[in-house]
Amino acid sequence: MSQTAPSKTEVRASESVAAVAKRAREASRALARLSDERRKAVLLAAAGAIEAGRAQILEANALDCAAAEPSVASGSMSAAMLKRLRLTESGIAGMATHVREVAGLPDPLGRTLMATELDDNLTLFRESCPLGVVGVVFESRPDVVPQVASLALKSGNALILKGGAEATHTNETLVRLWRAALEKLPEVPGDSVQLLHTRADVLELLSLDRDVDLIIPRGSYELVRYIMEHSRIPVLGHGEGICHVYVDRSADMEKALDIAYDAKVQYPAVCNAAETLLVHEDIAAKFLPQAVARLKKAGVEIRADAKTASLLPEEKIVRATEDDWSTEYGDMILAIKIVSDIDSAIDHINRYGSRHTDAIVTEDDAAAGKFMDEVDSAGVFQNASTRFADGFRYGFGAEVGISNSKLHARGPMGLEGLTTYKYKLYGNGHTVAPYAKGEKRFKHRRLDA
Amino acid sequence: MSQTAPSKTEVRASESVAAVAKRAREASRALARLSDERRKAVLLAAAGAIEAGRAQILEANALDCAAAEPSVASGSMSAAMLKRLRLTESGIAGMATHVREVAGLPDPLGRTLMATELDDNLTLFRESCPLGVVGVVFESRPDVVPQVASLALKSGNALILKGGAEATHTNETLVRLWRAALEKLPEVPGDSVQLLHTRADVLELLSLDRDVDLIIPRGSYELVRYIMEHSRIPVLGHGEGICHVYVDRSADMEKALDIAYDAKVQYPAVCNAAETLLVHEDIAAKFLPQAVARLKKAGVEIRADAKTASLLPEEKIVRATEDDWSTEYGDMILAIKIVSDIDSAIDHINRYGSRHTDAIVTEDDAAAGKFMDEVDSAGVFQNASTRFADGFRYGFGAEVGISNSKLHARGPMGLEGLTTYKYKLYGNGHTVAPYAKGEKRFKHRRLDA
Repeated sequence: MSQTAPSKTEVRASESVAAVAKRAREASRALARLSDERRKAVLLAAAGAIEAGRAQILEANALDCAAAEPSVASGSMSAAMLKRLRLTESGIAGMATHVREVAGLPDPLGRTLMATELDDNLTLFRESCPLGVVGVVFESRPDVVPQVASLALKSGNALILKGGAEATHTNETLVRLWRAALEKLPEVPGDSVQLLHTRADVLELLSLDRDVDLIIPRGSYELVRYIMEHSRIPVLGHGEGICHVYVDRSADMEKALDIAYDAKVQYPAVCNAAETLLVHEDIAAKFLPQAVARLKKAGVEIRADAKTASLLPEEKIVRATEDDWSTEYGDMILAIKIVSDIDSAIDHINRYGSRHTDAIVTEDDAAAGKFMDEVDSAGVFQNASTRFADGFRYGFGAEVGISNSKLHARGPMGLEGLTTYKYKLYGNGHTVAPYAKGEKRFKHRRLDA
Repeated sequence: MSQTAPSKTEVRASESVAAVAKRAREASRALARLSDERRKAVLLAAAGAIEAGRAQILEANALDCAAAEPSVASGSMSAAMLKRLRLTESGIAGMATHVREVAGLPDPLGRTLMATELDDNLTLFRESCPLGVVGVVFESRPDVVPQVASLALKSGNALILKGGAEATHTNETLVRLWRAALEKLPEVPGDSVQLLHTRADVLELLSLDRDVDLIIPRGSYELVRYIMEHSRIPVLGHGEGICHVYVDRSADMEKALDIAYDAKVQYPAVCNAAETLLVHEDIAAKFLPQAVARLKKAGVEIRADAKTASLLPEEKIVRATEDDWSTEYGDMILAIKIVSDIDSAIDHINRYGSRHTDAIVTEDDAAAGKFMDEVDSAGVFQNASTRFADGFRYGFGAEVGISNSKLHARGPMGLEGLTTYKYKLYGNGHTVAPYAKGEKRFKHRRLDA
């Protein structure tokens, strides 16, 4: 693409995001008609197309990586980002495997979620169905393309994708291969998966609330905030992950040491890693010296309140500021605070946390029950690391993302997050008038309970 | 309140909507701890308080009605609106009855929605819980106060209400009585129900996404649009109800006549009344003369396409314009169109409808199946009037509102619409590291399926 003249892609795109969305809507109607068998066949064909197109994918990816290298050299792109961009043969094989795994998941559509006999020959069903059109705006990793496309198609949704500029060639190749696979299946519209090209496209997409049902941003906190602030369409995504481990007075010492360590150290860059450790004052003097020694040995920087610092005079611990309690480090840094009781721990979490996942370590089940009821987070764990908050670990088979919203889908979202339901009512000429007049009465007999 | 000087209420309110929301958040934490027995007791106390406060409510209501009468005389308020505002002894008794009915509904909280053994001694539960703080902005009818307050408290949520200015005295009296009843129960915070006073309050409320979890607008289309456009908080409500009845070629004539009549005439002002009648061309010549005669006899004005008009030359039918297909009349007006096949009917509904409720009249179950799968609406009915789309008729016992959203709650919303869920994970010191290293494997055994 030329940098000086308006590019063809830009002109086309700025004219046609509404048209893209309309075609997606059309495609979604065709997808909603497909049986699970056909949706499976689509995904198996796409998996094959990815494998067969390996050389093209690697070639396109090499172009993207070469274009990115100067940015890494100049410091405007991190080495980690380049690493996420770069694909390998085994990475491509993994994409195809993942698509086949999604193909084999239980059908999320057409499930009867409720059934009630309202009256004789008048029966109501609540049945799961696709959302319709889903937009996914993502950064960096090209493996998002097959991952999200397989989840969208398995759940009968049309997909509009916009990836990061640094992965343009790779993403375009992946989408082209995917669409070519679809086009061999006559009843499956190619427009089931479409790719947008510019930031202006995204902004236009976010206004098309008639033809797009859900937007999922996947990327940095800035990306998610931007999407949330500019969208007329419902957005599901996660802003922040400020997770806590609270070590209760009745904690088992070994469990507490292991969980605090795992929650921070096992993979600190992710949203379900712990950022703050809260410790009951009755156990602090025993627990904290061992915990801090172990964390520091792993390279974790500690920022703590005055009480903690005074317990560990030799450690020369950095004092935490108010900001530390609401910071997602995403790094080998841990804030520590001593609390006087479980209520203070719960208050701290509800005040500073991001409602993602918080754990209590305790042998006192009543304390655990209180913590788990009162902490207002998507995940509340007793004696387990916050790192378990994940769609695969929860057993959903695949993960669309993690939702910080309390509505629709909360926490790790599997295929179910891409579905809604409709009410199907089967009557025999029934009118409301006789019920309104009191001539007839509803039975309301649950058939599914 | 003085109209010339800044009113005390305005000043207080503009300083403190954030404080109101914070108190609501605090109250919500206390509510989440209450057992269903306690929540029931709260509602029974509130029902008693309404009955005992009958004279005060009527007195306040008389003030509001007297203040409204000049507006009705001058035409700035409709007589129907004044009628909705005016309370009677039996209306107040009905409020108390309704609160007691909600008290007796099954507990929506603490339900296990999913249970999975992830591994030995590591078990995951998805459990229903309150949303937290719900804001309801409503117009005119003061009976919304006890109705919404009972639904919010039954589901463990704190409530912030803002009613119409015309019902100020009535709403304030109802909320005062309700709060007085709560204050007799020591563990129930009075701030479980709070009332805002000005439009500026509402605008501020809509920005408080940290302390308010859901906004429900109840009132005119303009109110709902305004709230949706200005809210940083998720909004559930319904914009429009453009419902269709499609009479298929294989319709039973009597059923079609009854359903078309009931869907339009039984209560034309409500959102689940039909606005457009679509008729298959093969049955139009037989069906339409009888249908139109019956509708006209009931006082329904017909606006139809050219084909319909030519079938009924004597009826001097007004020709429908493009706008008619997307208009919610909410009145005794019906648009009629002849379609060449079921696909045209489905396309028309998906293009012009509001995704509320649409019915097909047919004896052909395959046609019904196609219609019900492909029409993208919350309710899709075979051989039943669109007027059945209602929480009471669906058997939910009570209705928070009807949602046009596809996310969270679709269609009539019962208590479930005011709940979310959290994941509770019980472990025994479990860390992620051994699973990540492949030393341990998940079992993922569903306990609830």
